[in-house]
Amino acid sequence: MIVCTGSIALDTTRTPFAVYERQLGGAASFFSYGASFFSKTHLVGCVGDDFPVEHWRFLEKKGVAMDGVQKGGKTFFVDWNYGFDLQARTTNKLELNCMQDFKPVVPKAWRGHDFVYLGTLPPKQQLSVLEQMEDPKFSMLDTIEFYIQNDRRNLDRVVSAVDSVLLNDVEARMLADTPNLVKAAKYVLDLGPKLVLIKKGEHGALLFSKDFILPSPAFPLEEVVDPTGAGDSFAAGFLGHLTQCKTWDVSSYKKAMAFGHVMGSLAVEDFGLKRLASVSRKDIDERFGLYQRMVSF
Amino acid sequence: MIVCTGSIALDTTRTPFAVYERQLGGAASFFSYGASFFSKTHLVGCVGDDFPVEHWRFLEKKGVAMDGVQKGGKTFFVDWNYGFDLQARTTNKLELNCMQDFKPVVPKAWRGHDFVYLGTLPPKQQLSVLEQMEDPKFSMLDTIEFYIQNDRRNLDRVVSAVDSVLLNDVEARMLADTPNLVKAAKYVLDLGPKLVLIKKGEHGALLFSKDFILPSPAFPLEEVVDPTGAGDSFAAGFLGHLTQCKTWDVSSYKKAMAFGHVMGSLAVEDFGLKRLASVSRKDIDERFGLYQRMVSF
Repeated sequence: MIVCTGSIALDTTRTPFAVYERQLGGAASFFSYGASFFSKTHLVGCVGDDFPVEHWRFLEKKGVAMDGVQKGGKTFFVDWNYGFDLQARTTNKLELNCMQDFKPVVPKAWRGHDFVYLGTLPPKQQLSVLEQMEDPKFSMLDTIEFYIQNDRRNLDRVVSAVDSVLLNDVEARMLADTPNLVKAAKYVLDLGPKLVLIKKGEHGALLFSKDFILPSPAFPLEEVVDPTGAGDSFAAGFLGHLTQCKTWDVSSYKKAMAFGHVMGSLAVEDFGLKRLASVSRKDIDERFGLYQRMVSF
Repeated sequence: MIVCTGSIALDTTRTPFAVYERQLGGAASFFSYGASFFSKTHLVGCVGDDFPVEHWRFLEKKGVAMDGVQKGGKTFFVDWNYGFDLQARTTNKLELNCMQDFKPVVPKAWRGHDFVYLGTLPPKQQLSVLEQMEDPKFSMLDTIEFYIQNDRRNLDRVVSAVDSVLLNDVEARMLADTPNLVKAAKYVLDLGPKLVLIKKGEHGALLFSKDFILPSPAFPLEEVVDPTGAGDSFAAGFLGHLTQCKTWDVSSYKKAMAFGHVMGSLAVEDFGLKRLASVSRKDIDERFGLYQRMVSF
């Protein structure tokens, strides 16, 4: 049973090849939809009165528990552009709207659940969700450059309080102030988390603990349509797999990373959540098998 | 039995942390030294009268056959700088010297050998070495951006004539004129080679054939001292392992890639060839085991 929080957004995504307007996006939407392939997922967030009912139903139909989603005002909105490399992103417009003063409330019935995903939000809001949980077995935090640069004190508090931190390579280097990712991971581990996961997009990911480093390549794709949501989908596969493991050891972490790469690679094959909406658990397991055969030797 | 060619250089390498002057470098030096851990290696190249006798002896002592090295004039010389990221490199000075009009001659006794490595040289010189070989079982080509941009016609001829091509990600994108590495590899495979190996430095490598894609992460390092020679050392491990395989299949290619990562990661841990000079085959096999345990699941 997973409780997750993060943004629920209306995304306008522009690539040189197409535009996708006011569609369902945001860290918590990607995570909760993706994680629902693995475990019952409970969503804490906020949407505005303008939030299309079909988006709500889309998550609900997947089995996402929506009782932690507050309604009112306007939905968080982002308009961004990708360049021809489909990697660098520029933000044209960002309206926090209902997220501005969002006070997350975890429904009482959910507070005893074992897994918590703190998708990108202001660190204070992430900490509030974590503190409302009774005694989670495993928590994971994601963040963005903005909070590393502008809210470091609160970010450090929540980093120290979680079991694992998910960062991309740029964020890791920025947080630790070193170009070397191995050193950056050690720095973050020293803050408290037992695991640090560094995502490098098409270049794969690295999982660090005090005892091991596990490097893994990404699932190679010929066609990327929209990289939005890749990180949260990765987290959904990683954390999702851990909910299905009886014990956690190097072997289960490796498989969790592989499921992360599978979910991330699926997510980017179409705009927004379109591709994940079209797959079954069987498709996910098939790609997992393909990945394992590519990588293991 | 491997025949290799490429530059034999005196390198002056400057990093923000140290300077290493007129030391042994060049594609063929790194390759021949590294490959000698796996198979008898025969070097075709040129050095000047200024080439220090200790460098000659260093290769000879490792078992590199030197009868294909011509002497006269001045040795190829490069002076380059790395920035703080130890990745981007600027060339301060490059003197082709004896390489300018180098006419490679493969000693008769070597022409029947099975493996050929064509390290970076002008494509015409690479083709000449390949054409002197009788019927090699496996040939591999490396090149650089300069020849992709300035000698495309001859480069295409040698690409079409070899069994495998080694490129870094920038070279692959440039050669195929596409940002996507999977598409780039397909483009190169269509030119003729059976295998295309794309190196991505700290991000690992991808091996492509018409039938498979094998992604592999790099061996993670906390400390990189000098990235010079990483690609040729990778090639030494890859091709070196293939010389020791009875059959070549996906499993042997995966192990070859792993030996490539092992040799590349060792090479960058000190300046020039210093680190490779300090290791034994046992050290290489130990790192191979470590890598396999990190990656396989």
